[in-house]
Amino acid sequence: MPNLYGVILAGGWGASLWPLSRLLHPPSLLHLPGCGEGRSLIQETVARVLTRIPPHRIILVAPREQELEIRRHLELLGPGLSREITILAEPVDRNTAPAIAWAAQVLARKDPQALMAVFPGNQLLARPQYLWEALAAAYPVAQEGFLVALGITPGGPETGYGLIRQGPPLGAASGSMQVYRIEGFGEKPDPDTASGLAQGGYCWNSGIFLWQASSFLEALGRWRPQLLKNLTRMGLEAGASPPPGDYGRLENISVDQAVMEPHDRGAVISLPGDVGWHDLSTWQAVWEAAPKDQDGNYAAGEVLYADCRGSLVLATHRLVAGLGLEDLIVVETGDALLVAPRQQAHQLAKLTEPLKAQDAEVYRLPRTVFRPWGTFTVLEEGPGYKIKRIEVYPQGRLSLQFHHRRSENWIAVSGQAQVTRGEEVFVLQPQASTFIPREMPHRLENPGTAPAVIIEVQHGDYLGEDDIVRLEDVYGRLI
Amino acid sequence: MPNLYGVILAGGWGASLWPLSRLLHPPSLLHLPGCGEGRSLIQETVARVLTRIPPHRIILVAPREQELEIRRHLELLGPGLSREITILAEPVDRNTAPAIAWAAQVLARKDPQALMAVFPGNQLLARPQYLWEALAAAYPVAQEGFLVALGITPGGPETGYGLIRQGPPLGAASGSMQVYRIEGFGEKPDPDTASGLAQGGYCWNSGIFLWQASSFLEALGRWRPQLLKNLTRMGLEAGASPPPGDYGRLENISVDQAVMEPHDRGAVISLPGDVGWHDLSTWQAVWEAAPKDQDGNYAAGEVLYADCRGSLVLATHRLVAGLGLEDLIVVETGDALLVAPRQQAHQLAKLTEPLKAQDAEVYRLPRTVFRPWGTFTVLEEGPGYKIKRIEVYPQGRLSLQFHHRRSENWIAVSGQAQVTRGEEVFVLQPQASTFIPREMPHRLENPGTAPAVIIEVQHGDYLGEDDIVRLEDVYGRLI
Repeated sequence: MPNLYGVILAGGWGASLWPLSRLLHPPSLLHLPGCGEGRSLIQETVARVLTRIPPHRIILVAPREQELEIRRHLELLGPGLSREITILAEPVDRNTAPAIAWAAQVLARKDPQALMAVFPGNQLLARPQYLWEALAAAYPVAQEGFLVALGITPGGPETGYGLIRQGPPLGAASGSMQVYRIEGFGEKPDPDTASGLAQGGYCWNSGIFLWQASSFLEALGRWRPQLLKNLTRMGLEAGASPPPGDYGRLENISVDQAVMEPHDRGAVISLPGDVGWHDLSTWQAVWEAAPKDQDGNYAAGEVLYADCRGSLVLATHRLVAGLGLEDLIVVETGDALLVAPRQQAHQLAKLTEPLKAQDAEVYRLPRTVFRPWGTFTVLEEGPGYKIKRIEVYPQGRLSLQFHHRRSENWIAVSGQAQVTRGEEVFVLQPQASTFIPREMPHRLENPGTAPAVIIEVQHGDYLGEDDIVRLEDVYGRLI
Repeated sequence: MPNLYGVILAGGWGASLWPLSRLLHPPSLLHLPGCGEGRSLIQETVARVLTRIPPHRIILVAPREQELEIRRHLELLGPGLSREITILAEPVDRNTAPAIAWAAQVLARKDPQALMAVFPGNQLLARPQYLWEALAAAYPVAQEGFLVALGITPGGPETGYGLIRQGPPLGAASGSMQVYRIEGFGEKPDPDTASGLAQGGYCWNSGIFLWQASSFLEALGRWRPQLLKNLTRMGLEAGASPPPGDYGRLENISVDQAVMEPHDRGAVISLPGDVGWHDLSTWQAVWEAAPKDQDGNYAAGEVLYADCRGSLVLATHRLVAGLGLEDLIVVETGDALLVAPRQQAHQLAKLTEPLKAQDAEVYRLPRTVFRPWGTFTVLEEGPGYKIKRIEVYPQGRLSLQFHHRRSENWIAVSGQAQVTRGEEVFVLQPQASTFIPREMPHRLENPGTAPAVIIEVQHGDYLGEDDIVRLEDVYGRLI
């Protein structure tokens, strides 16, 4: 299918898998049980798409703040991939309609015949051959101008996914697969409705779609003309960097609500229930996707447990001991811990909303913060000091900076840490240390080929991240 | 009551309140909800005893390894107390019978008329006036040679405490308080038995006793002659340091089993159920003693919760978020986390026994390890490095030492850290650092009056605590 393009939505700013995911570390960047070979969810998704669509026909829409980290995940999956795959970087958190519309515009200009398959970046699919069969069956229908949604045949009542009601068949069946008209497109059902739906004629909305880029833009122009007009006015190309103000004015609406619900040329084709499809948008879904022991438990990290059933226990930084747990989620990270019944995990917002409202670090930042030059991790904070482990990637280069309110001791642990300290430039050998007084311009870089690790001890009456005055930065960050 | 002495059992090596308590950090050293004014359990107990018994008539039996830390708690309670109160330091973990017998021998030699009141070191008592009334009522009976146990009138069925069955009254009642003969002395009941006992005639065994030291030794000689003989052979005085081999050969048996059960001159007096007595030997008991919100929750530390009931959540090092918890115990420390239903908390050994069997650090050592000179806390370990925060008490002095396999960077954070580094001696000013190569003798001490805090970064292929060669130590530790 030479006109088939893949569009992967790598955003999802939410904190649905908090405390593993954070505002600046979305679910698609996580390594979760069910992902193969130590892959992240986005790597898993890209690898799946790559089996049928070459990288130069893949577009990834991602928040600008995660672009660098996503590129790193792509490079780890296959060297060169981050250059071959097009990344559209959103400057502001927007829902799926604007993201998909941007990709559709880019594709329609590039190839008027383009068919785009849209994939959420946080799903697993154990048996993807069904996906490709379904897309092949949907292909002729999409070429007729239909917007085709992929459905999942429900295995039981479920309130976590939106529903699609099937209408009369459309076109010829392909093997056992038949495309239907969409008769109704709905929100997540309440529990009563959900339990009445198992009988048939309904499927879950997987968030996977197939359509001609041009049909989609036409439908968008009909149902959300202002959104299309505002987007068109920006005249965005691939590689463009939309102004946050203009992009932020695009209507913040899902593609389901903006187009699929009102549209009269929607179609649906369902995957069988046993394809191993998992939308990892809640801890309950992660538990479902995880390989479990005979008592229904999944544990990762340093975990000790007895008499537990149906529980998911993830430990990242220390021993987690569980006794008598029933259907519980326990997720431990270096700076936060979540305990909740699996059945209530979808109400996580009750906890994360207050954190969001406070703009709490534990909501925004992962414990290990990814920067273009490497990472830093706050190991400990106490009165008057803060300890960080800083890892500088090979060839990474922090900004030339100084601080008004803190001094720093740097101790090299491994690798080649090149230090600029006022007028001096020298390599800090492992075990050696150097002191950076307040107000002194300094820079850290790694001229080597292995990561450089240093321990930084900050001293001062104020130790916030915002006391950085950048004098020069190779990544263009001066604030 | 000039002949009344207080004996406080500060041991309890177990890990019943793991992960807060550790083999080398027993429950009596913990600060738990229900303790007043930031006191530890042992401070709470000593303060209670001190209201009626002067410090020179108090004996504390404690594991030798905790003696220094207990002295520190006593000094914090009242300067000079650690010298006035006698501490008997057990070199080996033994049960209550040998501990009490040692104290009884010391007292009987000092004062042939000595009456000793025995108190476990891990209990709370909200209304202690009843305790003193009960002891006053028991006094004449104890003087007649009876061994008097203090009972607690049960508020409901409970399987966590041993039982005492009351027989006929003994002596005259004092107000509403009556001493009874003990008719039966039993182990913790099974749930069926427990629910049948609420009607009366039974009470819980509080572990508090009153008797003449001489009557106790007489009874011990009758029921456990070998234990008494072995103890007598050691000829221990207060301040003596029994050889671990000899002390370790004393029968490891509880006072209940060794003496109270077989003895025919046992008596019991009960405290009313509402005295606010709490034996903090399980997390369930800690929850019961804690002041709770209207939904029965107690939370301490950085805790965020919603829709929780009947739960105890303690956070010491990071945010703990609980959603929908019901009757759950969540205890977070820097290196371990426990999650268990309250009702199952007494089965904690299912988790701690495997840790004990592995001699795991997380079972033995608290995250902050107490030393005679101060404390150290391992903040982070990674490949080739380990980071510690070291706090040296005023006038504290580490041993002069060197390491075969590691070098160290020291960074001063606060206080006066005096460094010996080979031939040099100097004060490391806050923010300054120094490097200790492998094999170089070094020492850290604090000549100041405020604690000195340094951050230590170790480098090496092996970073175990046992790579310390001590050349000189003011606390007599050369291995």
